[in-house]
Amino acid sequence: MNGNRFGRLFQVTTYGESHGEAMGVTVSGCPAGLELSEEDIQGDLDRRKPGQSMITTSRGEPDEVTINSGVQDGYTTGTPIGMVIQNKDARSGKYEPYITAPRPSHGDFTYSAKFGTRNWGGGGRSSARETVNWVAAGAIAKKILATQGVEVKAHVNQIGDIEAPEVSWEEILEHSEENDVRCAHPETAEKMLDRIDEYQKEGDSIGGSIYFEARGVPRALGAPRFDSFSARLGQALMSVPAASAFEFGLGKEAREWTGKDRNEDWEFDDDGDPIPVGNTHGGIQGGITTGQPVYGELTLHAPTSIPKQQTTVDWETGEEKEIQVVGRHDPVLPPRGVPVVEAMVQLTVLDFMLLGGHINPDRLDGKVGEYRTDYHPRSPENMGE
Amino acid sequence: MNGNRFGRLFQVTTYGESHGEAMGVTVSGCPAGLELSEEDIQGDLDRRKPGQSMITTSRGEPDEVTINSGVQDGYTTGTPIGMVIQNKDARSGKYEPYITAPRPSHGDFTYSAKFGTRNWGGGGRSSARETVNWVAAGAIAKKILATQGVEVKAHVNQIGDIEAPEVSWEEILEHSEENDVRCAHPETAEKMLDRIDEYQKEGDSIGGSIYFEARGVPRALGAPRFDSFSARLGQALMSVPAASAFEFGLGKEAREWTGKDRNEDWEFDDDGDPIPVGNTHGGIQGGITTGQPVYGELTLHAPTSIPKQQTTVDWETGEEKEIQVVGRHDPVLPPRGVPVVEAMVQLTVLDFMLLGGHINPDRLDGKVGEYRTDYHPRSPENMGE
Amino acid sequence: MNGNRFGRLFQVTTYGESHGEAMGVTVSGCPAGLELSEEDIQGDLDRRKPGQSMITTSRGEPDEVTINSGVQDGYTTGTPIGMVIQNKDARSGKYEPYITAPRPSHGDFTYSAKFGTRNWGGGGRSSARETVNWVAAGAIAKKILATQGVEVKAHVNQIGDIEAPEVSWEEILEHSEENDVRCAHPETAEKMLDRIDEYQKEGDSIGGSIYFEARGVPRALGAPRFDSFSARLGQALMSVPAASAFEFGLGKEAREWTGKDRNEDWEFDDDGDPIPVGNTHGGIQGGITTGQPVYGELTLHAPTSIPKQQTTVDWETGEEKEIQVVGRHDPVLPPRGVPVVEAMVQLTVLDFMLLGGHINPDRLDGKVGEYRTDYHPRSPENMGE
Amino acid sequence: MNGNRFGRLFQVTTYGESHGEAMGVTVSGCPAGLELSEEDIQGDLDRRKPGQSMITTSRGEPDEVTINSGVQDGYTTGTPIGMVIQNKDARSGKYEPYITAPRPSHGDFTYSAKFGTRNWGGGGRSSARETVNWVAAGAIAKKILATQGVEVKAHVNQIGDIEAPEVSWEEILEHSEENDVRCAHPETAEKMLDRIDEYQKEGDSIGGSIYFEARGVPRALGAPRFDSFSARLGQALMSVPAASAFEFGLGKEAREWTGKDRNEDWEFDDDGDPIPVGNTHGGIQGGITTGQPVYGELTLHAPTSIPKQQTTVDWETGEEKEIQVVGRHDPVLPPRGVPVVEAMVQLTVLDFMLLGGHINPDRLDGKVGEYRTDYHPRSPENMGE
Repeated sequence: MNGNRFGRLFQVTTYGESHGEAMGVTVSGCPAGLELSEEDIQGDLDRRKPGQSMITTSRGEPDEVTINSGVQDGYTTGTPIGMVIQNKDARSGKYEPYITAPRPSHGDFTYSAKFGTRNWGGGGRSSARETVNWVAAGAIAKKILATQGVEVKAHVNQIGDIEAPEVSWEEILEHSEENDVRCAHPETAEKMLDRIDEYQKEGDSIGGSIYFEARGVPRALGAPRFDSFSARLGQALMSVPAASAFEFGLGKEAREWTGKDRNEDWEFDDDGDPIPVGNTHGGIQGGITTGQPVYGELTLHAPTSIPKQQTTVDWETGEEKEIQVVGRHDPVLPPRGVPVVEAMVQLTVLDFMLLGGHINPDRLDGKVGEYRTDYHPRSPENMGE
Repeated sequence: MNGNRFGRLFQVTTYGESHGEAMGVTVSGCPAGLELSEEDIQGDLDRRKPGQSMITTSRGEPDEVTINSGVQDGYTTGTPIGMVIQNKDARSGKYEPYITAPRPSHGDFTYSAKFGTRNWGGGGRSSARETVNWVAAGAIAKKILATQGVEVKAHVNQIGDIEAPEVSWEEILEHSEENDVRCAHPETAEKMLDRIDEYQKEGDSIGGSIYFEARGVPRALGAPRFDSFSARLGQALMSVPAASAFEFGLGKEAREWTGKDRNEDWEFDDDGDPIPVGNTHGGIQGGITTGQPVYGELTLHAPTSIPKQQTTVDWETGEEKEIQVVGRHDPVLPPRGVPVVEAMVQLTVLDFMLLGGHINPDRLDGKVGEYRTDYHPRSPENMGE
Repeated sequence: MNGNRFGRLFQVTTYGESHGEAMGVTVSGCPAGLELSEEDIQGDLDRRKPGQSMITTSRGEPDEVTINSGVQDGYTTGTPIGMVIQNKDARSGKYEPYITAPRPSHGDFTYSAKFGTRNWGGGGRSSARETVNWVAAGAIAKKILATQGVEVKAHVNQIGDIEAPEVSWEEILEHSEENDVRCAHPETAEKMLDRIDEYQKEGDSIGGSIYFEARGVPRALGAPRFDSFSARLGQALMSVPAASAFEFGLGKEAREWTGKDRNEDWEFDDDGDPIPVGNTHGGIQGGITTGQPVYGELTLHAPTSIPKQQTTVDWETGEEKEIQVVGRHDPVLPPRGVPVVEAMVQLTVLDFMLLGGHINPDRLDGKVGEYRTDYHPRSPENMGE
Repeated sequence: MNGNRFGRLFQVTTYGESHGEAMGVTVSGCPAGLELSEEDIQGDLDRRKPGQSMITTSRGEPDEVTINSGVQDGYTTGTPIGMVIQNKDARSGKYEPYITAPRPSHGDFTYSAKFGTRNWGGGGRSSARETVNWVAAGAIAKKILATQGVEVKAHVNQIGDIEAPEVSWEEILEHSEENDVRCAHPETAEKMLDRIDEYQKEGDSIGGSIYFEARGVPRALGAPRFDSFSARLGQALMSVPAASAFEFGLGKEAREWTGKDRNEDWEFDDDGDPIPVGNTHGGIQGGITTGQPVYGELTLHAPTSIPKQQTTVDWETGEEKEIQVVGRHDPVLPPRGVPVVEAMVQLTVLDFMLLGGHINPDRLDGKVGEYRTDYHPRSPENMGE
């Protein structure tokens, strides 16, 4: 309702502003018995972190997470996990000129219109800094999903007019983290970096898109109609800052496909179970997962913070004002967006798996903590009578 | 959670299967004092109704709605409005062969996988028949929005490879309901109809897309991040049967736009208020509405029910099976999808307006019912002390 | 939010007014494969029905329920169950004098204050007639719970100053439905009936209370803190019309007990599991069920509709007005409240059981429907891979 | 769902264990423009703090709160307020003997049964330490309510068999904080302290109850039926640790009152508005507030941690075990429960006021922050067009 909560059973609640004291995220609904420490989370935070390459903002945030609760002796207890990430390199002073003069196409005006005020330092609550919370929560989801055989991976498939050719799942796994732009097609990655460099030199920025795929997603997830897998995934991904298009399966192309071409016959798989002959359906039929890979694409528009000169108006002085957003900004969003998109897909899949009873606790937990009081694990024998 | 509820304050709850007894929808959170009768709803039901033209299924459903509660002496009372639409032309018998042999790319398999059973008559709960409930609820939302100066309209902007040129808001209002395909560009509409006819003759179907626009949407709607206007609108529209892509503003094109080109300077409007110089942002900045028109596009894939021969497997007999879905089906979805998309946009806008306190009850109600007990209308004077 | 929804996974949504067209309830989240027909529901509706004895209103409502969806060939499909109960004996005319003159201690004034209008016939939406919906939903919950070994029963343990002695679970099962007052202690029941008769003759009404008990409730239900079993049960039962006190376990008496007396040592049960030596804790410790019976008490104040002369004011005329609520009213609420309380307890227990994964589908379903497509029942083997 | 969230529009999300790193609470939905600093919260935390008198645990927690977000230049921004309270005096070691041997009538067993593990230090997540979060959130609610003319106050009205006579609102305000037991009747407070002292010397504990009252609550709050004011207040207060009975208005006594005696005639108030002649209804009619004071009572059972010798069983060794809970514990809960009850009532009232549009922002905000960008405060003029 207020925008800082995601998930039905795996519940994420966030707070924090770009240049505030700290970012924070509370995860509740995490199954008990998962081995978990700050290190499990840090890796993904580092992938999202500013300052990791020439094509990201130079803001220096270590993004170190502290777990305040929900973990004992190295294992989750099933109760809420509170995490805090301090903001270390906040410098809000330079945003003072824009307090009453909204930056073009940012959230400055709309936040002020909504609340009558806003945290104006670096975008405040509207900043993509918030996604550090999502990635922290997503890292927990990712670890749980891994125990259940579910893997989510994304890569950058287009920057401006540079589009990567279709790549295989294996290529995504192997190459997407090898280059700064996080494109799984190395040759295209080079081109993308060159193009970004051109825009950066011009003081401009550019849009792009992220392809995501989830493997091992169990069939039967999704509650049509309003909570269908695609509707909830759509909400999750349209929450990503700068998202302007969400697609799954054939996506927008589907409008040019005939029923005959798009429809997939059924055959039997090796176990004698019905299985569609292809995956134009993107792993979702009738709003429910089929067990085939779920894949799709998210388009992010160009970063709105650019050094180029632009014009705004100051509602206090009533005057026009030239503006150059000279801070430390990303020239393109998808590279750092990859872990964010993965996190939102992971949170969505896990939430549906918990709702459908698809998390097998035996797979979750190889060994138990020293003080684990595992008297009554939830199991059919212990249910009810 | 279970998929049959939409909205936070303007709450819609639905039930019903394609060939069941009746469809039903309960609307709660409707402001009191709205003049409302079945006739206000029937008009939009007729726009969605089967059998309205050569390019829709010939199933004969009058789709007459009965209001069971929430209205007295012609005015809403603020309490839940229960509505029922009887299914009159249900003929589920012809679906018997498919009970254990899923139709290609339908929800047959996934529903059975999820529930271990399913209502197999004509898609049962997975049928687009469900959207009759949405349109009924949307008609109430539409009437409220009209009193507040908000109008939502959609039209079909692409069928297969036939794409309409950009049309103005006025053209949409004037032309979209003039032809069977609901395309606001008459010349393109002709071409679309021809193309549909071709596919229909081949026993095939085709995809397409719907452009929607909302005017008069107040600024400041949306609660970033997870309940941003775009995230919730994405969920709403990705709930539409056969949706595979959701876009707003520049949509997918945004990936090829630079920041400089996409960003919009601010100027003052006639009232001296800041206003962006254009609307590439699609009425939403930072996840919150700007007061500019909200517009976007929804892609629907081709109908999966086609007379062409396809192959499936029967999980009971373990055998392959040829299948021809010979029922009464639409060759293309967008024409009947137009009122459905409008309904989902209306429900989303109204829900946000209620959450933000943007419904002005004085505009709602020109006159009062004979027995209206309007002692204490909710107004600032009557609040608190 | 709007008051017509109950439950998280077993979701109940209601509508209807005392003298409106019909009452309606949509149940979603009901597991698939439950044999269900109108007859399963009718029995409990009859227990709640008006006109069943001398101490209930003489309004003649057959309260026949129609199932519109969610059931096929006699078995639930897992999709929403829509039910409608027509109002047959509505006579709202006699309430006209009270439209602008609120009846003492009814909801007339508060509904008008909230909505600026109200359905004034017989209390409209504020009438206890609404509970027919709850009992219909509860009957479904009851049937599911029975398959899982959970049973809920209530009886009237006090009317005015007549208090029943403590009775055993077996006595409640055996005697509570034997007399019109639904008190499981026959001798006390006689006294209660006499006392009610006295008040009825005086044109007055009287309060009372209902004792409830749930057996077979699995341990581990409840999510402390705000969703503890006791908090949610409290909400459920304080929703009952005229409820003014909710207790569980020792209830209000607990304030006079010492820790030593109230605390219960642990011993081993026959299976070698820890079990508390008693049940002063009412089946709930730390907000979570222990597996011991959950029991408590709900106090209902006297019916507010009494024939005795009272005074009100008419906000239209600005004048005082004598009032005698001469309709067809109950002189005491608990007897018809018994099935209502049972329903709310059943809905609460079942909802928690679904949330905790405590419903064993194998117990649910002795046999399957003729057309049951039970290809993929949800089971560990079919989850995930 | 997971128990760590409260509120619909004024949303509270908590985490933390008794002897964990820190307690944390995120408040979202707080209106923008409220002057707020840690000092506004500290006062109530101090009232709840351990070690404040001879009758509270001697654990030494400063309970200092840090605000991490949502406040800028001393004013709330409308975005989530993240707060953290470090645990300074955690000593979980002494709880080791109870890891597999549940303390009598604590949540040890049920938490282990639910999660298969638990944080065993001092009750972990089941500890009343959690309520420090509630009081922190409640302090914000309290400050907002004060601007709207709403005040909530509680006092201890019974400890064991010592019951305070009825006291006036003014006496509660004046005397309840004067003595360690927080009873507004000084003479009774003395007796209570003596009685507590007796139990403490015996190594025992005792139950008690808290009376609460809310003044200035606007009429028309509450959405019958399941979200009635009384149902939601019931849930809120039954969440309080050790709560076993909730009452409002006449409460349990209502069962002995006749309709005639309990019903309240209507008269006109000085403004010519209908007003009930008394307040036996406790400020709530038909589940909706009347504008009269809302009052009621919450019963808390005796603390379960007592030094007296008790018996338990160890599920690991399979042996009986004597147990003496020798930590630092309260002999009675209501004195420290007073700010907790007030907080839960405040959170409930404020949440309903926000839902009903009853917060007047003009009253909220006397002056504005230095950097307040109050271009578009939400006001009727800025709504809509």
